[in-house]
Amino acid sequence: MPLEIERKFLVRGEGWRDQGEGIPYRQGYLSTVPDRTVRVRLVRDKGYLTIKGVSVGAARAEYEYEIPAVEAGEMLDNLCERPLIEKTRYRVEHQGLIWEVDEFDGDNAGLIIAEVELDAEDQAIILPDWVGNEVTDDPRYYNANLITDPFTSWSRESNH
Amino acid sequence: MPLEIERKFLVRGEGWRDQGEGIPYRQGYLSTVPDRTVRVRLVRDKGYLTIKGVSVGAARAEYEYEIPAVEAGEMLDNLCERPLIEKTRYRVEHQGLIWEVDEFDGDNAGLIIAEVELDAEDQAIILPDWVGNEVTDDPRYYNANLITDPFTSWSRESNH
Repeated sequence: MPLEIERKFLVRGEGWRDQGEGIPYRQGYLSTVPDRTVRVRLVRDKGYLTIKGVSVGAARAEYEYEIPAVEAGEMLDNLCERPLIEKTRYRVEHQGLIWEVDEFDGDNAGLIIAEVELDAEDQAIILPDWVGNEVTDDPRYYNANLITDPFTSWSRESNH
Repeated sequence: MPLEIERKFLVRGEGWRDQGEGIPYRQGYLSTVPDRTVRVRLVRDKGYLTIKGVSVGAARAEYEYEIPAVEAGEMLDNLCERPLIEKTRYRVEHQGLIWEVDEFDGDNAGLIIAEVELDAEDQAIILPDWVGNEVTDDPRYYNANLITDPFTSWSRESNH
């Protein structure tokens, strides 16, 4: 079974910004049930369908299939839960690892998250200085939950 | 957008049975929400992922992608809602149209449904004599609903 192992952090400051252009991501969910999320994603001219199981620590079963971009667009427009997730993704290299920095828009504007994919859960990583608190285990930051409970609806109440 | 147009009937008698061997289907759902069902299906050595929108009359948006059979099997074993749907499908030719006759097993044992796929909603069809009441618009017979409310749980209370 393909497993995804990743850690997620909040981002502070702008130190990550000057490493290249961001790519717009448009994505939505056909299922936001944590046991079986089904995501439709459109990145430039490519569409993807991604199925993920429940997270166990930082690991999670993940199946991803490329699909025609036109069909991904139709599913986003007509079938997916509302709101959609719109974000810009930046790839930032740091100490031999690639970090994906997602700057959210729309109902999640103001939220910036950095993710790093690992080969093993206990892999040692050197954190960039623009990385803040780890939120790997915080369900509020799952993209699927950012639809039902967008960042702007709770970010003013909590500290981070 | 790809549209699926099909009509569904209950089956009476055995007149459809001698037209060839049935093929076992194993399928489950990642989403049973009527607005966006997501089905995983394993047929012999082929896996499929199918997304359907809400039905408007006999028509419904449908997207189907072939996926590796091993991954379909893993999703059926580990991710899909319970119970799975197990059925044997027979293809029966009648008056120039192909009918798919599904004989259900497990929690839906006793249920036999015949489906015919059409090019247009108003297409004239000649019904075989082993076809009974039409159930196209009856949500109880949607495969997704046969998981949450299997046939054996309600078939004794109603007439058909």
